[in-house]
Amino acid sequence: MDKTKQNDIYTKAKEWIIEAGQYIRSRMYKELKVTTKSDPNDLVTDLDRDTERLLTQRIRQTYPNHFIISEEGYGDKLTDLKGTVWIIDPIDGTMNFIHQKRNFAISIGIYHDHVGEIGFIYDVVGDVLYSAKRGLGAFKNERPLKRLDSNVPLSQAMIAMNHFWLCENHLVCEKTMQKFVRSIRGTRTYGSAALEFAYVAEGILDGYLAINLSPWDVAAGIVIVNEVGGLTTTIDGDALSLLTKSPILTCNPSLQLEIIQYIKKGRKVT
Amino acid sequence: MDKTKQNDIYTKAKEWIIEAGQYIRSRMYKELKVTTKSDPNDLVTDLDRDTERLLTQRIRQTYPNHFIISEEGYGDKLTDLKGTVWIIDPIDGTMNFIHQKRNFAISIGIYHDHVGEIGFIYDVVGDVLYSAKRGLGAFKNERPLKRLDSNVPLSQAMIAMNHFWLCENHLVCEKTMQKFVRSIRGTRTYGSAALEFAYVAEGILDGYLAINLSPWDVAAGIVIVNEVGGLTTTIDGDALSLLTKSPILTCNPSLQLEIIQYIKKGRKVT
Repeated sequence: MDKTKQNDIYTKAKEWIIEAGQYIRSRMYKELKVTTKSDPNDLVTDLDRDTERLLTQRIRQTYPNHFIISEEGYGDKLTDLKGTVWIIDPIDGTMNFIHQKRNFAISIGIYHDHVGEIGFIYDVVGDVLYSAKRGLGAFKNERPLKRLDSNVPLSQAMIAMNHFWLCENHLVCEKTMQKFVRSIRGTRTYGSAALEFAYVAEGILDGYLAINLSPWDVAAGIVIVNEVGGLTTTIDGDALSLLTKSPILTCNPSLQLEIIQYIKKGRKVT
Repeated sequence: MDKTKQNDIYTKAKEWIIEAGQYIRSRMYKELKVTTKSDPNDLVTDLDRDTERLLTQRIRQTYPNHFIISEEGYGDKLTDLKGTVWIIDPIDGTMNFIHQKRNFAISIGIYHDHVGEIGFIYDVVGDVLYSAKRGLGAFKNERPLKRLDSNVPLSQAMIAMNHFWLCENHLVCEKTMQKFVRSIRGTRTYGSAALEFAYVAEGILDGYLAINLSPWDVAAGIVIVNEVGGLTTTIDGDALSLLTKSPILTCNPSLQLEIIQYIKKGRKVT
């Protein structure tokens, strides 16, 4: 994507994500209709859907030739990432949104011919916008994020992961992950994949391990983490597909191989 | 403690905790001397110590007859909570303080003849002060906190707990806790006991389970949670001592018995 086009799309996307944030803040303290999706804790509200509709309308009006992959049903069914594709989660961390009224984000990743060009993660209540353009660095509001410290030993790493890694699961023997937890400095669980990516980019987490994330959970985060030198792959170190769900590791580059090797010890055959 | 005295001490403590917060903010971005205490992840900095010294000096000058229990060595060795006792953690969440420069708090609980009278938890970087006076309610900055919703089913509860609950530990069979995690709505880990108590008081968490907390981690939180109708005990439902470490549950009153019964299924004999 040429820089003029990248810049034009970036400017529009920034305007729309701020607008969507204002829209969420204006409605979030009123009564929400909460329903469940795949399981009783997979929550969605009418505001998730309405925010996605707002964003997709803006995109389709201005960029009728672009494609959209999104969480709540207003997107397209795609089989590849050819052309320009917006990958959108209108409210990432819906459980936090409902229970805490904070600690959730709007996530927008924009890809062109399979390459991540633009990422936005907007912490709506904190009013903090993480953003990146490929090749031009990542920002927290207007402040550039530093490149990640490449000398973090695993024993001093703070890693975000949810608690299911330590329960019996289909990916990795839980005993391996229990040892992993004891071998690092600390674990955190924030409940928003987009924000956990943003915190890795900011360097306040050294990594984030997730069992099963969808394209809209990670598309923006990948671009932002990439711009500070972080790496995002499957937990086996393979390249990610943005068309399916995957177990994901995003982290400081100094930790990637070691974490993947650790997981490999307990990796179950799928 | 009579209300005039309670109010006088509250006013002074509030002034000093704000002063201590300003002091931390003024120094925290400079180089810190980090050392370890009981294990390689039990961290302390010179700023933890200097902040505690500042607070204890203020208390001793103004209230020479009061006692102090504190984390970093400037307090007294007490065998009971007779008289007026300040229980202080200058930086609760030191790992967050060092790695994140946020998500830590100053915690001050003030007890008189064993009764919790005043609690302050100051999120220094967020500039949010949680406070309570016994019998007069709890506040977030100047806004009163609501009484906790007493109809939260366990299946919809969000509980803060660290990941060690799900690893082999001396308290509870980890398999029981793994089932527990699967039976609730969600888990979170923030890494500051004081803030986790504050979030329970605010109702954005329904409970917080901790394996081993010291008096200074919980003294303020107990008073604040109590003022919104929450309950704090050991994980067996027993009254807490504020002279020793304990495994702790603080939560919404509607969940307390159910969580204790759950833990009891896997409780190890000590």
